[in-house]
Amino acid sequence: MGCILNSSNIFPNVKIVLVETSHPGNIGAVMRSMETMGLVQLVLVNPKIYPHPDVDARASNASIALNNVTVVQSLDEALQDCQLVLGASARNRKIAVPLVDARDCGKLCLEYKQSNIAIVFGPERTGLTNEQLIQCNFHVHIPANEHYQALNIAAAVQVICYELRMAKLSTIEKEQEYTGEPLADYNDMLGMYKHLEQMLCDVDFLDQDNPKKLMVRLKRMFNRIKLEKTEVNILRGIINSISKA
Amino acid sequence: MGCILNSSNIFPNVKIVLVETSHPGNIGAVMRSMETMGLVQLVLVNPKIYPHPDVDARASNASIALNNVTVVQSLDEALQDCQLVLGASARNRKIAVPLVDARDCGKLCLEYKQSNIAIVFGPERTGLTNEQLIQCNFHVHIPANEHYQALNIAAAVQVICYELRMAKLSTIEKEQEYTGEPLADYNDMLGMYKHLEQMLCDVDFLDQDNPKKLMVRLKRMFNRIKLEKTEVNILRGIINSISKA
Repeated sequence: MGCILNSSNIFPNVKIVLVETSHPGNIGAVMRSMETMGLVQLVLVNPKIYPHPDVDARASNASIALNNVTVVQSLDEALQDCQLVLGASARNRKIAVPLVDARDCGKLCLEYKQSNIAIVFGPERTGLTNEQLIQCNFHVHIPANEHYQALNIAAAVQVICYELRMAKLSTIEKEQEYTGEPLADYNDMLGMYKHLEQMLCDVDFLDQDNPKKLMVRLKRMFNRIKLEKTEVNILRGIINSISKA
Repeated sequence: MGCILNSSNIFPNVKIVLVETSHPGNIGAVMRSMETMGLVQLVLVNPKIYPHPDVDARASNASIALNNVTVVQSLDEALQDCQLVLGASARNRKIAVPLVDARDCGKLCLEYKQSNIAIVFGPERTGLTNEQLIQCNFHVHIPANEHYQALNIAAAVQVICYELRMAKLSTIEKEQEYTGEPLADYNDMLGMYKHLEQMLCDVDFLDQDNPKKLMVRLKRMFNRIKLEKTEVNILRGIINSISKA
């Protein structure tokens, strides 16, 4: 196992995305958590306070993480090159995005090793909104005490990155080839949903008083599939033909 | 899974022992980590600063942990009623106490369910001494990045308590996790594909010379997920609207 255990960057295709984090100390603690497990790509979406000395204090010399931070203004921007998006959330949701636990999250990241993957964490107090969660292919949860679920954000990142590392370590000898076609990325999906929504309005199927519920259901359905690029092209071709007709 | 998931005290026989912790904030963060995973017994051996407002600030209302803290003057005192002692340490030791990883630690705690168990963590900077580690039945380590092993003490407690919880959950008979709506059956799918094929002809998207290849691709796509009955109804509703338009 030496080779992989020694590696400081075991999942170069996985980034941790923190949305509107309030406390800079938590950002530093997340860097430390990531680097102990060999993850190095961190994206901050609109952080409340950054940079700040508390980041460095809590990062405790996690140099790789510190050198690989990207700051962006929106979640869309953070996710645009990703084919697989996992949203971490402690809360139960009425609209069921497929739920996986932290261990399965590690397995998924192995399975999609050809894809760019984002694991997204919401603000400390509120977590991800339903709207943000519905953008995700999977909802990741850590099985916690139901009377006290409040893992600190760095602790949640620690557990999930730990499971990624454990998944990687468990399969070092069984490297398997992904033979599927290239998957659609976030922008492909975003474009298709807009196109689809427009067409549904045109044919008077979409209820203008309540458009979101239908689109949420359709997104939930398509996100379960993990569409390939070719499939998105086929679907957009169909939508085009319908619009012309 | 309800019963155990709801439990706030899943390992009443396990205590976390912190030896000479320097920072009261770390003690609070450990309480929070423990309680999220349903562990509640905390023993502090000769803490540098305790009590302190930082404990409560970082404990974030982890009431059970806060109410179950014992302070003692020596490690011997902390361990005197224990049949199994596990020492957590990141460093390799020349004196080989049997080594287990965090996952095996969870399994051990299940196995020794009739025993009082202590999981011991050393001071932040130095960890357990060789002498302290030799008092332990097992040396527990978390497989970390060898170039940056420094998990924060609360992060290490989080991972180990998480593995205890996962070990416990794995023994509970797995209930059907699918809580979604009823799935579409074969006939539902057959009906939808016919309907879809007809519509695709109507809008001149389907290549009449080679109709099967497109339908095969679409079937392959939809069959990758198990569509729910409601989703099939939505899709047929869309197809109907298109046909009318």
